[in-house]
Order: sequence, then C-alpha cells, then structure tokens
Amino acid sequence: MSKIKIAFQGEPGAYSEAAAIGFHPYAITTVPCHNFDDVFQAVTQGSCQRGILPIENSLAGSIHRNYDLLLRNDLHIIGEFHLRVSHCLLALPGVKLEDIRRVYSHPQALAQCEANLERLGVEKILEADTAGSARLLRQLDDHQAGALASRRAAEVYDLQILAENMEDNPANFTRFLVVANAPEEQAGRQSSSCKTSIVFSLHNRPGVLFKALSVFALRDIDLTKIESRPLPGHPWEYIFYIDFAGHINDPVCCRALEHLQELAPFFRILGSYPRHQLDYQIEKR
Amino acid sequence: MSKIKIAFQGEPGAYSEAAAIGFHPYAITTVPCHNFDDVFQAVTQGSCQRGILPIENSLAGSIHRNYDLLLRNDLHIIGEFHLRVSHCLLALPGVKLEDIRRVYSHPQALAQCEANLERLGVEKILEADTAGSARLLRQLDDHQAGALASRRAAEVYDLQILAENMEDNPANFTRFLVVANAPEEQAGRQSSSCKTSIVFSLHNRPGVLFKALSVFALRDIDLTKIESRPLPGHPWEYIFYIDFAGHINDPVCCRALEHLQELAPFFRILGSYPRHQLDYQIEKR
Repeated sequence: MSKIKIAFQGEPGAYSEAAAIGFHPYAITTVPCHNFDDVFQAVTQGSCQRGILPIENSLAGSIHRNYDLLLRNDLHIIGEFHLRVSHCLLALPGVKLEDIRRVYSHPQALAQCEANLERLGVEKILEADTAGSARLLRQLDDHQAGALASRRAAEVYDLQILAENMEDNPANFTRFLVVANAPEEQAGRQSSSCKTSIVFSLHNRPGVLFKALSVFALRDIDLTKIESRPLPGHPWEYIFYIDFAGHINDPVCCRALEHLQELAPFFRILGSYPRHQLDYQIEKR
Repeated sequence: MSKIKIAFQGEPGAYSEAAAIGFHPYAITTVPCHNFDDVFQAVTQGSCQRGILPIENSLAGSIHRNYDLLLRNDLHIIGEFHLRVSHCLLALPGVKLEDIRRVYSHPQALAQCEANLERLGVEKILEADTAGSARLLRQLDDHQAGALASRRAAEVYDLQILAENMEDNPANFTRFLVVANAPEEQAGRQSSSCKTSIVFSLHNRPGVLFKALSVFALRDIDLTKIESRPLPGHPWEYIFYIDFAGHINDPVCCRALEHLQELAPFFRILGSYPRHQLDYQIEKR
C-alpha cells in the first residue's frame, strides 16, 4: 500500500511536519506547501489525503487565518495533536557552543528564547521560518552561526543539536488539526474521549450568546474553546467557533446541537474526532 | 492652554492619527510612535496625556497585541472611536489616473482593494504601512505610481486624491480605544450611552463561562464583544475580555461585576467610557 500524503505549511523540518509525523503511528509522506491556502487546496483537490494545520499556540493564541479558512473550505476535522514546541539550537557538525556568534530563526522563536539567547550573548537574525533558518545555515556553511528550529530540522538538514528546550517558558504547545475530504468513522470510541468543533452565527440580540452556551451547560457538556471572528459585511457582529467534549453521534450532543440550531441562522459541524490528551499536568510535577 | 498630546502608532498620516483627530472635537497634537508598546509607554511615562490604539477591524478581526498590552499596562480606557477605513488612491500633483503603473501600500490595504486595482491593471508593491507608502511616493518623486492611504496622508505629504473608497467591501471599520493614566468622570451621562471593558480569568471547570455570562444576561446587560486570549503558563486556559453596554457607576452593572468576581480568580475593569455610535445602518440604506 502506498503511504498516505499529508500536506503541511512550511519547509521540510517545520514544526507542522513534526506534528504530522507525531500524529500518525505509521509511515507517511509529508508534502510541504507554501501557505495555509495551499494546504486546503492540496486536500480539496485530492493531491494529498490529509492536511495538518496549526490552530492555536498556548503562548501566542489562535491562528485566526486557519479559523477563517476552515469556514471558507469544506474539509472535515478528523484529528487533533498537541505538539510541545521545543526550540533546539542547531549548528553545523563540529561547531561548539562557544563558537556561536549569531542565531537565525523566525521572530517568534527568537522572542520565545530571549533570556537564553541573551545569556549566550549572540546576535539575533530574523528569518521567515524556523526550518528555513536551519536550511540557510547549511547553505551558508556558517561555522559561527546557529539556528533555532525543531529536532526534526536537525535530521532534515544534517545539523547537530547543541542545546534543547531553548525556550524561556516551557508551557509552549501548539494544537494542530488534521483535516480530510470526508469525516472518519469513530466506531467503538467513547463519546467522552472525543471532541467536536462547530461554527455558527447568532442573531444580534441581547443575551443570545448566553442562550447559545446554555444548550451545552444545561446538558453538562464541557466547552474546551470559544473563538469569535468578524462576520464580513456586518461590522461588530461575529461568527463563533466552539470546541466541546463529546461526539456528534452521542444523543446528548446531538440534542444540544439541534437546540443550538434554533438560535443560529448559520451552523456547521467542522468535525468530531478523538481527543488528544495533553500530558502537561504530568510534566509540571 | 497648550494642546493635549495623543500618542499613536505609525507615521504621520496613519489611520490611527485620523482616528485621534476624529475623536477629539478640539485641536490636539498627535505624536507618532514606532510600535504599540511605545504608545503605552508614552502615556504611562507622561510624555503624552493620551494614546489611541486600534483594537478591532470589522473585516480582519481583533488586534490581539493590543489586548495583551492593555493587560500588561495600567492605563484606563476613556473613549472609543469607529473609523470608516476608506483607502484613497494618492498621487503626486498633476499625475492622472491613466499614468499610474504601480501602487504602493500595506499588504492588507492592497488586499482590501484587490478588485479595483485589477481593473486599473497596476502592479502592487508591498510597503510596511499606508502612510509610509504615501511618504515614499513623495520622496521617490515617482510620476507613474500611486499609494493607497488615508485622506489625512494626502494632506500630510501634499499629494492629490485620484480616487476615494478604493476598498472592495465598504463595511470596513476600525474600532479605536483612547487610553489615559486615570479614568475620566462621566458626570451627567446616562449609563445606557456608555460601554465598559473588563478582563478576567475563570477556574477551568465545566459550565464556568456560561455562569460568567449569566451575571450579565440575568440583569439584561447587553454584551457587545467577547475575546479570549491564552493564559500564559496554563495551556488551553484563557483570559476573557468583555465589553458590555452600561457604566460601572450604574448599580445594576456594579452588582453584575460583584457577582462575576465570585467566579473570577482574576478581574480588572479596563474602563467605562461614552459609546461611539456607528452609523453604518444609515450608510447601508
């Protein structure tokens, strides 16, 4: 059987590629894409069976572009994956930590490693992405430079890892969504081990968001995320994205969503999928 | 009496400067700042009495950086202003529309005017901001180029306006907040003509957001905005920003906030201020 193809945004060695590999327990082919639109296109047009998209970082917040693209496209969320974002300091083989004068990376990665980079006393050089800075280091053959990127990028560009966990705040996770052209059967899986993502609009009336949340609260359904985005053409009206614990095949969830549709002029299920448990509580101990 | 100083992010002629002038019925001195942090610093340290900050655009959504900075700093919101973002096509005096071969502007402005620019058949050139592209046009003395920027930028850089309302979607508004070191008295003003902005965290328990919204819904207090941002160090927990209709001096609002504090481990009032009515409904007719 040929390996399934997963589209991701970025260059080989990107955190999105690491998440794609982490999500799949079997060998896959990862396909780099220039931007997020291209990931949606690759899956919609069938050149890839799946796509992986960062949707939220625990420090920087939501990636709103991908919320908007989920609405604009017709893909289904079939999975989620929490990746611990651990920035490694990469260098050419043979280079020692004390040789490093400058460090290349994405502005956000450089900012997240600020205290550690200051201790090293290195110059920070901004690049478009983390994996691209690892590739650049290899191309330039620069023996006085490092790059902040994923462990995966070290493998891809044959670089050594001088230091791991360069980030100042270890509570740095990105949540990724795995999307496909059709929903996946979750036969035999407990509703409590699943999550469902929906998107809806509401009439602009007092108390309407409270009423919308009541359809979940009155049924003891746990919301894990709420995100609002502008409703185009209607200034200061919103589209709401909600994630909740449970599967749409569960009669309780199903009734909650029927109830919500009484209030929502627009409503769509983005997907029901296995919940990826984050083991951050364990790490903290 | 010397004119009060208002800090804004951007170059002279920026939309933020136009909003500062639009908000104040009297003459002010506008002070350009390099970034949003500098606006907060200018007001905190007293070199400016006020600052103006974009917080949300009706097409692109919230400016999350400014939500985070409101929390990190101790300024008070004393006003809001809705600016209709109308991109003008500016050119050097004497240049005609048919002479224009290329247009300079910020990527978002170019994207918002895409259909109109395609009709003109011009090349799009990306610059860091709209007012900066107007300044560049003047510096380059380029008679075959235009810039997309505010009407205010035409005055600042002595350019002519070849066309107004270049944006494809006229429902393009930015909401600005005016901040100061101390709250302003709203003596004699009806609570119903005011808005209040607050920020709070919640314990991570099922139904807790529903309970938080109930303190407003049960008192018929109208929410106008909800925004969630990550709680640093606690992956997938959130800080909530809410705007509601009413003034904190109104006993009903006051009781709602007391009620909310029973649920919220962290709570802060960002400000009560006069509501700026958006006349978009009138424009649509």
